[in-house]
Amino acid sequence: MKPEDKRPTPMIYERVALIGLGLIASSMAHAMRRGRVAGEITGYARSAETRAVAREIGLCDRVCESAAEAAEGADLVVLCVPVGAMGAVAAEIAPALKPGATLSDVGSVKRAVIAQVSPHVPRGVHFVPAHPLAGTEYSGPRAGFATLFDNRWCILVPEGADRTAVDRLAAFWRALGANVDEMDADHHDRVLAVVSHAPHLIAYTMVGVADHLETVTDREVIKYSASGFRDFTRIAASDPTMWRDVFLTNRDATLDILGRFAEELFVLQRAIRMGDGQLLFDYFTRTRAIRRGIIEAGQDTPAPDFGRAAAAGPGE
Amino acid sequence: MKPEDKRPTPMIYERVALIGLGLIASSMAHAMRRGRVAGEITGYARSAETRAVAREIGLCDRVCESAAEAAEGADLVVLCVPVGAMGAVAAEIAPALKPGATLSDVGSVKRAVIAQVSPHVPRGVHFVPAHPLAGTEYSGPRAGFATLFDNRWCILVPEGADRTAVDRLAAFWRALGANVDEMDADHHDRVLAVVSHAPHLIAYTMVGVADHLETVTDREVIKYSASGFRDFTRIAASDPTMWRDVFLTNRDATLDILGRFAEELFVLQRAIRMGDGQLLFDYFTRTRAIRRGIIEAGQDTPAPDFGRAAAAGPGE
Repeated sequence: MKPEDKRPTPMIYERVALIGLGLIASSMAHAMRRGRVAGEITGYARSAETRAVAREIGLCDRVCESAAEAAEGADLVVLCVPVGAMGAVAAEIAPALKPGATLSDVGSVKRAVIAQVSPHVPRGVHFVPAHPLAGTEYSGPRAGFATLFDNRWCILVPEGADRTAVDRLAAFWRALGANVDEMDADHHDRVLAVVSHAPHLIAYTMVGVADHLETVTDREVIKYSASGFRDFTRIAASDPTMWRDVFLTNRDATLDILGRFAEELFVLQRAIRMGDGQLLFDYFTRTRAIRRGIIEAGQDTPAPDFGRAAAAGPGE
Repeated sequence: MKPEDKRPTPMIYERVALIGLGLIASSMAHAMRRGRVAGEITGYARSAETRAVAREIGLCDRVCESAAEAAEGADLVVLCVPVGAMGAVAAEIAPALKPGATLSDVGSVKRAVIAQVSPHVPRGVHFVPAHPLAGTEYSGPRAGFATLFDNRWCILVPEGADRTAVDRLAAFWRALGANVDEMDADHHDRVLAVVSHAPHLIAYTMVGVADHLETVTDREVIKYSASGFRDFTRIAASDPTMWRDVFLTNRDATLDILGRFAEELFVLQRAIRMGDGQLLFDYFTRTRAIRRGIIEAGQDTPAPDFGRAAAAGPGE
């Protein structure tokens, strides 16, 4: 986590609108306040219950009754809804967007979001897709916390957007604590299939297997989970709607990685069946090097708490 | 973590010998000292370097030059070597075991350890296999810490051993901070295949897939690992020798779980390919319930630090 006093944080947008008020949007609201990044924060969520919670906890300056109302007059509008809902929301707010405004999103898939949203973007509005690589297994407006993006990466996918608008959005994300990178949409989707989408599907699968066993009870699985399985269950507790949309919209890249995964798994399964200890030993030795790289890159710490203690979360 | 003042910790064995001085043995040594559980701790490791480190950090009261020397006169001898080495070590120390002593182990597989060790156990020595379900991705004598077993489960597999000896070993593990359960060897091996062995092989596989990609570099995988992949790399950094032996000795149960995993993965892959969002949504909703059970069972906390901050580890 960066110490707050080292981070320059001038106001970057006069008014920011958050469409959708889940984990990411609520964390953005907290981080914007921490850094005094926006003059006013408006928000909208489709569910009346979510809007009520957002008002109760004072998440935004104004919680509006429609997406268009929240977006009206905003300098930055960020779509924080599941990937599958981006197109419809963009169509709804398009007439309310002010000329010169920046439209962005936080979707985990970029090519499909661009295809859905682009046709609705009015002339004079800058569409700069983005994806902050941060999250927990919690969802909803109460799940957010100000440090979620600290020292994490936010990938911008400008695809030819206005440079001034892109640089301003980059400054915004840096003020929220993130490091910023740029990438093209297809490469983003391939990278995310490896580091996020396939691992999530695999974790969901392993937890499903445990749930379906006859000889080992769910109670036993839960009781003895500390030996490896627990890490899978955390990943597999992530928001079902969000993840359904991720897999359906990043289908090709995810299926490619899962196909490679199945091949590789069969090689190791065969080594176990044939008693090929040397193959297993060599394979397990190579995978250690990647872990060392992650610790050296500062994306985790060697301490057994995963370096997460630094990020004050909803349970703390 | 249990507060120390609530845990009654009389000396349980006069002399405890640790054969093998890796993560588990060194954590046992620290936990024994914390709880004043043993009068004297002797230790032995096959590698001269490990013995030197153990002496340097004062891990045991005596680091011996042979396993038999360490075991001689001990009231409890614990085999803390990889599962594949248990038989040879048992044969080596058998003549040195004192009548009435308890012989135990900490292997992650129980049926194979029993088959290897039992033939060497002298009459009058009580063999009580055990498995503490605790670990980190670190290995070696410097990796141990006193709180590793706190509130974790230790499974005893008595298989008809003397009740007094079993109860005493249970009291020993409780004094080290663990909760104690008993189970038969085959059931232990099936449960562990689900909660630990298959998840480890899957994590190794996913990290291997990432390492083999052409279009996404290792540097990118490492840089963006926080989005799910990082948890896999931690598991896949575990000791290669230990895990090779686990898979080779718990072969049938592990292959059974991996076979089920592959089937289930194909069902989800097909749902992605066919665009069956309802199947994915329902599946992901069910897996959330298991996570809730784990938090309710106290095997993790809802905080994003995984509840590991409580356990002071080697990196702290």
